[in-house]
Amino acid sequence: MRATVMHAAGDVRIENVPDATIVQPTDALIRVTRACICGSDLWPYRSMQPSDQGQRMGHEAIGVVEAVGAEVRTVKRGDVVVMPFAFSDGTCVFCHEGLPTACIHVGFFGYGGTDGAQAEAIRIPYADGTLFALPVGEDDALMPSLLTLSDVMGTGHHAAVVAEVGPGKNVAVVGDGAVGLCGVIAAKRLGAERIILLGRHPARIALAREFGATDVVSERGADAVERVRQLTGGHGAHAVLECVGLGQAMKTAVEITRPGGAIGRVGVPQDPAMPASQPAFYHNVTVGGGPAPVRAYIRELLPDILEGRIQPGRVFDRVVDLNGVPRGYRDMNDRKSLKVMVRP
Amino acid sequence: MRATVMHAAGDVRIENVPDATIVQPTDALIRVTRACICGSDLWPYRSMQPSDQGQRMGHEAIGVVEAVGAEVRTVKRGDVVVMPFAFSDGTCVFCHEGLPTACIHVGFFGYGGTDGAQAEAIRIPYADGTLFALPVGEDDALMPSLLTLSDVMGTGHHAAVVAEVGPGKNVAVVGDGAVGLCGVIAAKRLGAERIILLGRHPARIALAREFGATDVVSERGADAVERVRQLTGGHGAHAVLECVGLGQAMKTAVEITRPGGAIGRVGVPQDPAMPASQPAFYHNVTVGGGPAPVRAYIRELLPDILEGRIQPGRVFDRVVDLNGVPRGYRDMNDRKSLKVMVRP
Repeated sequence: MRATVMHAAGDVRIENVPDATIVQPTDALIRVTRACICGSDLWPYRSMQPSDQGQRMGHEAIGVVEAVGAEVRTVKRGDVVVMPFAFSDGTCVFCHEGLPTACIHVGFFGYGGTDGAQAEAIRIPYADGTLFALPVGEDDALMPSLLTLSDVMGTGHHAAVVAEVGPGKNVAVVGDGAVGLCGVIAAKRLGAERIILLGRHPARIALAREFGATDVVSERGADAVERVRQLTGGHGAHAVLECVGLGQAMKTAVEITRPGGAIGRVGVPQDPAMPASQPAFYHNVTVGGGPAPVRAYIRELLPDILEGRIQPGRVFDRVVDLNGVPRGYRDMNDRKSLKVMVRP
Repeated sequence: MRATVMHAAGDVRIENVPDATIVQPTDALIRVTRACICGSDLWPYRSMQPSDQGQRMGHEAIGVVEAVGAEVRTVKRGDVVVMPFAFSDGTCVFCHEGLPTACIHVGFFGYGGTDGAQAEAIRIPYADGTLFALPVGEDDALMPSLLTLSDVMGTGHHAAVVAEVGPGKNVAVVGDGAVGLCGVIAAKRLGAERIILLGRHPARIALAREFGATDVVSERGADAVERVRQLTGGHGAHAVLECVGLGQAMKTAVEITRPGGAIGRVGVPQDPAMPASQPAFYHNVTVGGGPAPVRAYIRELLPDILEGRIQPGRVFDRVVDLNGVPRGYRDMNDRKSLKVMVRP
C-alpha cells in the first residue's frame, strides 16, 4: 500500500510499504477515506534529522473498517469511524477518568513503529477503546468537520476546558492555526463573552471572526500584551488558550492572563522549560493542558457537528490526494495553506 | 522604635528607626505582640547585595491596634488583630474574588518602603481590607496557631486548594519547612486519604506524622520519585504541594504527579523558568499557585484553630525577643530551628 514517510526535514515521500494488517486480536484495520496534515507535523518537517527508514506520518483520520480482530466488540466491518490521534485501551483507570491520552497502553499514530494515517490504510491498536463509529456514510457532506474530531477540534476544546472558559469570561486565543481557530469555536460554544484572537494572517482572522472572535490583536510581544489589557479592562483575560507551543507564545500567554486566571496549553512545547514561570506565580495564574483526550470529547462535540451548530471543518482550505501530500506540507509550512485534507 | 533591618546576606541588625505612625486615613498602627521569621526571609539572607539603607524585615504578625486613621471602620483601638503578609484594600475586584494578593493596591510588608513586622510596631495600609480582628486576648494560649494565619497556615492551605486536594486523593507534600507541614495539616483537613511528606529532617518528619502524614519519603531525586510511585499504585499523587521554590523541588513535584493531577506551588520560585514543563505537558499536569490569599482564608481556618481541631502553631520551635532575631535567622538558615517566633 502507499503511505507517507518523512526521511528528514523537508523530505516527505509517498512510498510503497507493506500492507497494514491485523496483528493483535484487539486491532482493527481501516481504509483511510480522509486524513490531514497537522500543525504538529511541521515540527519534524523543520527539524528532523535524516533517517534511513524514515517516519510514518499522519495521526488524524476517518475511515471505513475493513477487518477487525477476534476480540473487537464495538466496531465492525463497514463502519465509518473517526480515529483520534492517540490509541487507548478504553478500559484502564485513565480512560475511565476521561484522560485516554494517559492510557496505560497509549500510543501515538506514526510513532514507535505504528502506522501513520496519511496512507491508504492503517492498523488501529485497541480498536474498541480508540475508534468511534459515526452515524453517517463515508461521503457525507459533514466529513471535514467530523474529521476535526480526530484532533484539532478536540484539542481546541481541551484548551478551552483547561482554561476554564465559561459564560461571562474574557478569553484570549494565542495562535491562528487550525487549533487556535477551533479554540475560538470552543470558547464561543462554552459561552465566552469576549474572544480575542492573537494572530496576523488575514484569511485566518476572517475565519476566526466568523467562528466567534470578537476582537483580533495582530501586534506582537509587549504591544500585543498592552492591546489585550486594553480590551479587558486593564487586567487581562480570564482564560487563555495557548495554541502554538513556542516559548514566546507561552510568555505572551502568561502576560495576558488576568491574575487568578488560567492558561490551557495545547501547542506542543518546543522548550523543555516554561519561560515566564515566575510572572505566572506572582499572578496566581494556573497553567494546564497537554495532549488532548480527544477520544473522550467526541461524544460531547459530535451532536453540535451533526446538527450544524459548529463547523470546524472550515479550517480545511485545500484537499490533496496522496501524491499531493509533500506539496501540502510545503504549503502549510509556508503558511499558504491553513490545513490540508488528504483523500488517499 | 526598634525594628529588624537586613543590610546584606547574613547581616541582620536590630536598629532604632523612626516610630511607625498613621500616614493615610485608611491606616492603622499596631503594636506587634507576635511576629516570626519566614522561610522566604532566608532567600535574601543568603543572597542580598549590600545596601546602605537596608531592608525592613518581617511580614507575619499579630498585634494590638494602637490607633486608626479617620476612615478605618472595621478595627478599633485595643483590638487584637492578625496581619496577613500582604496588605489589600478589601474593596477591589480581586479582593471580592478572594484573591487579595492581586489587589489593585496590594503591597508586601517590608518591601517598597513599608514597615516590617519584626519590630515593636508597624503601620498597616488599608487596615479595613488587611487586618482581621481576633476574638481572643493578646496573650491567649492559641497565639502560636493564630499567628500562622498571617502566612504559613494560609499558604499551606492555598497549596492544597490549588492542588485540588479532596477526599480519597493521594497527596504529596514537597518540603518539610513550616509551609510544608501546614500543607500536611491542610491536606488532612480537606480529606486526603494518603499524605506523603518528602523531607529528611527527623524532628520535622515526626511533627508531620502527628499532623497527618501517612508516609515519609526521605530519598532524593529519582529515588524519591520511585518511592512515591510505589506508594501510589505506580502512577503518582493526584495532588502535589510544592513548598520549597527551588527548581529541583519543582522538577520532583512534576515527576511525582499522576497524569491529570495538579500541583499547588507556594514556594517562591528561585528560577525564572519552570523546569520539567514538557513532562508536565505530556502528562496533562496542571501547575498553579502563587502568593497565597491568606486574608481570604482566615474566615475558613480560624474556627478550626479556636476549637482546637488544627494546631499549626506547633511549627514554632523557638521564641526570641527582638535582640534574638539575628540569631533566629542564623538558626533557621542552619536548619537548627524550624520556625522562630518573635516577641518584640
